[in-house]
Amino acid sequence: MNADTFALLESYMLQCMEDSAHDKEHIYRVLYNALRIAAGEDKVDFDVLICSCLLHDIGRKEQYENANICHAIAGGEKACRFLLENGFPLAFSQRVQDCIQSHRFRKSSPPQSLEAKILFDADKLDVCGALGIARSLLYVGIVSEPLYSLFPDGTVSDGEYDTEPSFFHEYKFKLEKLYDCFYTETGKKLALNRRKAAVDFYESIYREVSISHREGQELLRKLLENQ
Amino acid sequence: MNADTFALLESYMLQCMEDSAHDKEHIYRVLYNALRIAAGEDKVDFDVLICSCLLHDIGRKEQYENANICHAIAGGEKACRFLLENGFPLAFSQRVQDCIQSHRFRKSSPPQSLEAKILFDADKLDVCGALGIARSLLYVGIVSEPLYSLFPDGTVSDGEYDTEPSFFHEYKFKLEKLYDCFYTETGKKLALNRRKAAVDFYESIYREVSISHREGQELLRKLLENQ
Repeated sequence: MNADTFALLESYMLQCMEDSAHDKEHIYRVLYNALRIAAGEDKVDFDVLICSCLLHDIGRKEQYENANICHAIAGGEKACRFLLENGFPLAFSQRVQDCIQSHRFRKSSPPQSLEAKILFDADKLDVCGALGIARSLLYVGIVSEPLYSLFPDGTVSDGEYDTEPSFFHEYKFKLEKLYDCFYTETGKKLALNRRKAAVDFYESIYREVSISHREGQELLRKLLENQ
Repeated sequence: MNADTFALLESYMLQCMEDSAHDKEHIYRVLYNALRIAAGEDKVDFDVLICSCLLHDIGRKEQYENANICHAIAGGEKACRFLLENGFPLAFSQRVQDCIQSHRFRKSSPPQSLEAKILFDADKLDVCGALGIARSLLYVGIVSEPLYSLFPDGTVSDGEYDTEPSFFHEYKFKLEKLYDCFYTETGKKLALNRRKAAVDFYESIYREVSISHREGQELLRKLLENQ
């Protein structure tokens, strides 16, 4: 890919995501992660890969506006249309569409091509480690969910059996389970390098809040009972 | 304090903060932290302390609506008014007001009474460790700030010399420097127990994103140059 083509795709991506600072940061990291993963693979079509990375989340706006729309499907269609309108070949545009449509974690549409597997892994890598924790917390802040839930006795739930959304729930249901879902060796290796930071953070915050609640409630109970 | 008085204060606190899930979690942790800190001190007036903890952030709404209003000053006045209207003695109400007005980190109004120092430390403890990282990230999400800034050459700034707001900036300018500002021995000890979790998290996320940007940009540059 030459610099002019890159600039065209980057400009379209930025235009599609102009309202979202976090999403833009994420796009560049996914692109960079993908190139690092691709360095461990043979026969990568870098034009398809770079294009798919830059455009993989351009359907986010459609999904925000209508939760029934899947951003991967909508983004794949938008990307294909944009590429055709800008003179890219049909086969190339469809390969990019395929990569984008399978980047989301869905059993019904796993990534097939090498480039689709690299995009999938690069995107998942961005939810691993400390960065994955940070991105999940940004989201929890944006949608006004709590950090954790309390059991009826007032102690802190670790998230494992929660039914209500919270950061601890997200960690137990999603973040903790990510590390087995990689397709490439390099992706898996990079993810495992980050795992300890996420585990350590979760264990630290769970310890901090559960001790605070348990000890504090016990002290409060004694004070109120003594009156 | 008896259970009825506690319920009256708790109910007023919840009414003042009904729009903010995170703030409510924080109030209970500050109360619990304060009781743990108080266990290491002599001659604590627990009625003043519990009341000050429960009501310390009830001026947040006023500050959100008008950034020129300091939530500590507004909250102290609201608390005093509520207490007087509900038959609490003037001296008690004023002691609570003093605690609340000095809980914010301001050189001009440091906490004077033992209860004010305990509230100050309990509130600061909630910004330490993994929990402090999590609360800062929630805030960054809510106000749509980025995680980090880039230098003109595209490398990731560690936040140290940033002028624009970001999570890394917040860590370097505020979170990293908290641990020296405690008034009580127990507060300082509890804070230092949490310090490593925050340092480890920041170092991990900085490493993850700076390597991703540096290696990825180098690979991208080579690919674009070869065309």
